Amino acid sequence: MKGNVIVGQSGGPTAVINSSLAGVYKTAMERGFSKVYGMRNGIQGFLDEQYIDLSDHIKNELDLELLKRTPSAFLGTCRYKLPEIHEDKGIYERIFELLDKLKIEVFIYIGGNDSMDTIKKLSDYSLLTGAKQRFVGCPKTIDNDLAITDHTPGFGSAAKYIATSTKEIICDAMGFSYKKKNVNIIEIMGRNAGWLTGAAALCRSEDCEGPDLIYLPEVTFDIEKFVEKIKKLLEKKDVVVAVVSEGIKTADGHYVCEKSAGSETTDAFGHIQMTGTASYLAGIVQKELGCKTRAVELSTLQRAAAHLASKIDVDEAFNVGGACVKAADEGSTGVMVVIERVSDDPYQSTTGVYDVHRIANDEKVVPRNWISKNGDYVTEEFLDYVRPLIQGQYSPMMVEGLPRHLSMHLKNYDWAKAHK
Amino acid sequence: MKGNVIVGQSGGPTAVINSSLAGVYKTAMERGFSKVYGMRNGIQGFLDEQYIDLSDHIKNELDLELLKRTPSAFLGTCRYKLPEIHEDKGIYERIFELLDKLKIEVFIYIGGNDSMDTIKKLSDYSLLTGAKQRFVGCPKTIDNDLAITDHTPGFGSAAKYIATSTKEIICDAMGFSYKKKNVNIIEIMGRNAGWLTGAAALCRSEDCEGPDLIYLPEVTFDIEKFVEKIKKLLEKKDVVVAVVSEGIKTADGHYVCEKSAGSETTDAFGHIQMTGTASYLAGIVQKELGCKTRAVELSTLQRAAAHLASKIDVDEAFNVGGACVKAADEGSTGVMVVIERVSDDPYQSTTGVYDVHRIANDEKVVPRNWISKNGDYVTEEFLDYVRPLIQGQYSPMMVEGLPRHLSMHLKNYDWAKAHK
Repeated sequence: MKGNVIVGQSGGPTAVINSSLAGVYKTAMERGFSKVYGMRNGIQGFLDEQYIDLSDHIKNELDLELLKRTPSAFLGTCRYKLPEIHEDKGIYERIFELLDKLKIEVFIYIGGNDSMDTIKKLSDYSLLTGAKQRFVGCPKTIDNDLAITDHTPGFGSAAKYIATSTKEIICDAMGFSYKKKNVNIIEIMGRNAGWLTGAAALCRSEDCEGPDLIYLPEVTFDIEKFVEKIKKLLEKKDVVVAVVSEGIKTADGHYVCEKSAGSETTDAFGHIQMTGTASYLAGIVQKELGCKTRAVELSTLQRAAAHLASKIDVDEAFNVGGACVKAADEGSTGVMVVIERVSDDPYQSTTGVYDVHRIANDEKVVPRNWISKNGDYVTEEFLDYVRPLIQGQYSPMMVEGLPRHLSMHLKNYDWAKAHK
Repeated sequence: MKGNVIVGQSGGPTAVINSSLAGVYKTAMERGFSKVYGMRNGIQGFLDEQYIDLSDHIKNELDLELLKRTPSAFLGTCRYKLPEIHEDKGIYERIFELLDKLKIEVFIYIGGNDSMDTIKKLSDYSLLTGAKQRFVGCPKTIDNDLAITDHTPGFGSAAKYIATSTKEIICDAMGFSYKKKNVNIIEIMGRNAGWLTGAAALCRSEDCEGPDLIYLPEVTFDIEKFVEKIKKLLEKKDVVVAVVSEGIKTADGHYVCEKSAGSETTDAFGHIQMTGTASYLAGIVQKELGCKTRAVELSTLQRAAAHLASKIDVDEAFNVGGACVKAADEGSTGVMVVIERVSDDPYQSTTGVYDVHRIANDEKVVPRNWISKNGDYVTEEFLDYVRPLIQGQYSPMMVEGLPRHLSMHLKNYDWAKAHK
């Protein structure tokens, strides 16, 4: 008789992080584990003994399908970094005491770089103490900045949402351009890696011009040149669309969004808000070129839009979750499951495992040769890499016209009482 | 042998304005009109003799289905108000000369209040001169602020997108709230009418708490009370979500977004930007309550997100377009087609015609008794009115992972050349 599995979610959520959770649950049940516990709010909540038995919430196959279509972290998430083992042994003792109490054999953590650091430390500690639990990392991040894995679950769905929204914004702008040129600046998430920003170019197709300019954080941004390029484009066309990463920096090493909140352009309370790149640039373009401008920030929607998740992404996230359980069940520990691209055309992928010590805290950015020479677009190689990841969709399960999610928040929630 | 039909689009686009265009085209063909012309960019482009033969672009039933799924104005739009007849008779002579030249019998204009004004003036002029053309208005606006019609095509799809996005934003925020309360402020379009803002409440359901506070432009906004309410809610719950109209005003009669760009909070160039309500309020909440805040502006996406259009809305838009042709063909002129709600449950609607003189420039706002007494939510009556309009969806036609649109822009477009 096998013992139990525990699974947690950590860091920024994605549209498919719960599909990995569903994969963990399903494979654990199929492989004969007794129970699957879920940590509430990752390792932080677990330390407060916050956990649930997932079978109380996933009662049938329909619930499992709903979970795959539910955005954000079903279990709740946290941003919590474990101390080094020598800094605070007590915290590790506490975690392993809880794991023993719950008869945990397998510990799976779904997350990005910081989460892999947690897996590394816990598996190191287990080696030091001879604890029997196995620790496996399940990759997740819309930013696609994890090393070794071909790409991360969550990225494809965010890319699909971004490309679709960019296409719709361009379509909208084109309709309005008669005798009234307009410039549109779209701001995309990804502080240091431009994977998501570049994905906007996927909408360039037979029925859409696509963006005119794309600026990744990997390339130094020059505001003057940017305005000059837009000016030149406006001589030839009525609508200009530029897509910028929230993380673009000028040559002085400062984020453009810092300028937005800096002394020149002080926001309401002098707080430095790490958004506002697009609206800052739109202000400059409007001032310099006098044309109508619009800034659009896709904000949290790009990581939460499960209604437009990519089927490839949902399926891969599910498979990666299952592969974590399989790897642990077969004896692996201190590893992360990775996605390996087997073939580009037709697209095929499989999973592998990789030593988490060789992954943690290494940030994968867009290679320079996948960005155009003058730094204002992505190349065909970039697009060939991303395109397979946005294919297909899962029909949302619609109830009363809206996508239904699996939720545990409302079990004891009394709206009227909370609003008294 | 019947003559020709001409159709134009005007004002802000919607996700389904092209479905009305498709309805006009299909019914005109079926009723034996010779040709259907499309004005490029409404009456403004038409005055420059910019028009197309729609059969050059809609070549088969698939194209027609694509058109129903294409956001923004396929023909291009304009914001152009005709002068009074006595002010500039020349412009009217010019228009009717063109109509005669193209053998137009029926003139259909898809738009909002200003567009109905165009229908009124042109039909008045035709009565004065004995011109034989018939003029029919086809309602459209995400804002739902047209009088007489039960609701406007375009509203339901925007409402569906807003409710879905609000639900996804709430889901995202809930995942992040462990030991870190957060306040989220979502800004919705609709300067004077709160129909869209109120629609966010549709996401309150078995699986979602829904927003906590909803502020429509119909009710005077009190910043101090707003902060006080959030403070009180934070005592009971970890995540607070407020949805605000871009058009909320304080007791002094000023828009909150004006404050955002006003002297206290000067934007980059002192320009008054009519956005920023949410980020202004988020700044205040952060300062006063010290908690994590996030401002999300749904921006143009709420009128362009055809990928999530409501089936009821797409179908009604199509039917209303067809009903315009039918009305004109049967002799009506100077009318707008309206939607009449036949039944709430099950929802059924039909079309009627209404004298455009009695409609033009009358703005329909949310009745005070559909807003909660203390002005911070909408009532069940409001939701019962909106809910039927967001039901069902049209599967987007996906090509390479993205929704395909019908487009005429790219006929002669050379991307490389435009970027030289």
